[in-house]
Amino acid sequence: MSELDLIREYFSHVGVARRDVALGVGDDCALLRVPRGFELAVSIDTLTAGVHFLANADPDSIGHKALAVGLSDLAAMGAEPAWATLALTLPTADRRWVGAFCRGFARLAESHGVQLVGGDTTRGPLSVTVQVHGLVPGGTAVRRLGARPGDRIWVTGTLGDAGLTLRHLEAGEPVSPYLRERLDRPLPRVAAGLSLRGLASAMIDVSDGLAADLGHILEASGVGAEIALPALPLSPEVAGYVDSTADWTLPLASGDDYELCFTVPPDRCGGVEALAEPSDCRPTVIGVITEKPGLRCIQADGGDWRPSRAGYDHFAEGG
Amino acid sequence: MSELDLIREYFSHVGVARRDVALGVGDDCALLRVPRGFELAVSIDTLTAGVHFLANADPDSIGHKALAVGLSDLAAMGAEPAWATLALTLPTADRRWVGAFCRGFARLAESHGVQLVGGDTTRGPLSVTVQVHGLVPGGTAVRRLGARPGDRIWVTGTLGDAGLTLRHLEAGEPVSPYLRERLDRPLPRVAAGLSLRGLASAMIDVSDGLAADLGHILEASGVGAEIALPALPLSPEVAGYVDSTADWTLPLASGDDYELCFTVPPDRCGGVEALAEPSDCRPTVIGVITEKPGLRCIQADGGDWRPSRAGYDHFAEGG
Repeated sequence: MSELDLIREYFSHVGVARRDVALGVGDDCALLRVPRGFELAVSIDTLTAGVHFLANADPDSIGHKALAVGLSDLAAMGAEPAWATLALTLPTADRRWVGAFCRGFARLAESHGVQLVGGDTTRGPLSVTVQVHGLVPGGTAVRRLGARPGDRIWVTGTLGDAGLTLRHLEAGEPVSPYLRERLDRPLPRVAAGLSLRGLASAMIDVSDGLAADLGHILEASGVGAEIALPALPLSPEVAGYVDSTADWTLPLASGDDYELCFTVPPDRCGGVEALAEPSDCRPTVIGVITEKPGLRCIQADGGDWRPSRAGYDHFAEGG
Repeated sequence: MSELDLIREYFSHVGVARRDVALGVGDDCALLRVPRGFELAVSIDTLTAGVHFLANADPDSIGHKALAVGLSDLAAMGAEPAWATLALTLPTADRRWVGAFCRGFARLAESHGVQLVGGDTTRGPLSVTVQVHGLVPGGTAVRRLGARPGDRIWVTGTLGDAGLTLRHLEAGEPVSPYLRERLDRPLPRVAAGLSLRGLASAMIDVSDGLAADLGHILEASGVGAEIALPALPLSPEVAGYVDSTADWTLPLASGDDYELCFTVPPDRCGGVEALAEPSDCRPTVIGVITEKPGLRCIQADGGDWRPSRAGYDHFAEGG
């Protein structure tokens, strides 16, 4: 039995054992049962060494994050996580590395009732692709295209933590445990996403930065938005950074937040306020959907804020 | 819009438009409908440059093969192909390359009624991960574990063509169009796989070589096998190679065949003979399942054949 075969053994029992799995890891295909009346929500994502994580990053964190990214996509549709498949490309068959990777993956899988049902292990530059599979009652998934003028814009948790952590790391500066955790082990907002079915008119997860991802909602819905920069939910660390630099690109565009951004008609906002979310991911109103296209970011003095560096496709040209 | 965004545009309309796709490419998740009474069969596979294909290989062929590998897994379960997702990692955002890749992928997808429903494009060393999704009436999928002593062992098509092609290429020798096609554009045996539901007691696709893959059936079923080397279906090219070298490792262990190997109880073999398979993938009986574990390969003179080089875990120690 080769080392890669031994590694495949690790994947046989990752996550919970679900009754809707007719056949898991170990045959040509897994066999899965979708309950009647439900739609299957699927999303596939690759994390590559040197792009999405440092090649020497803690494998436990890489395992966690590879699954978290997908669960965040399920959360953004209001889908309940069910199954995952994993394609792992490894430069060497390092069983210790894979053991730690699986622990990180498995812990998050268990906390969301997910079973790993299929895997492929190949040799090559380090890279992880995960597909997540979730279930959602037919016709109830929350898409990007339902935002209407007047809808309030909400975001869960805080923005810019992962971006600030990366900056500190790149500068060789110390990083608080809170910030490090926000970069390495983001917690997908699955419970919030499920609660928002029937309340949110549009939803997306914030993976590329609020401006870009809210931009996708605006584009899909054919609307614009105004957001109030002082209303953005920030951790003390990011608030301190913005206070001292006046640089809003960090909370608006640094990515890797894995929060949910969603829109809610005004008469349903009470329902969002009533959600029993834990304090670290409670949603905050940050703005309103407008008929006029583009994204306006309004500062405390009422003036428009414009980014000083390029790359913000989704900021309105005209403000 | 970035080059990667432009490339994502290519993925919006690959393959056929299926009515069971409630939402395809372009949101956080795709939304899919599994018909009542069916199970969902899924398989994920990665092809990496330098391991599974040459980095300078024709992108049209890479697109074809990346999907073919998955469809071959669906065929081996007797599942009907439905949807695919694609995670593509590219060193540079080369639109011409991606266009050709998509054409190869799309042509095969269309010929099997498959819709691409989700994609992810990232920067990094060239690598392609595809997940296929198929449908099979509940409880009818053909697994690896059902082979019983006395069952006949069958294989579709011919063995060793891709392996011989690779040898020729590595030696800088000319390769016939037939052989090149067998390596670059294998045709997954989907129709045969569907026909074999209710006939085959166990099935697998031959991707790692007949000895290894039949070995997986033997292991899962707790049985052994005897195969008659002169019965192996070989193309004239591979038959010529074996005649001149007496080296059976090529048809037994070179991999990338993407044929189906399956077992059938004697009283059902008439059903297999009656299948209207095209001549290039007609199944051939190559041996029989035995109680005694291990794989015996019997030569024309009745003696056992043993491989001269190492690496054949699944050959019986005792012959």
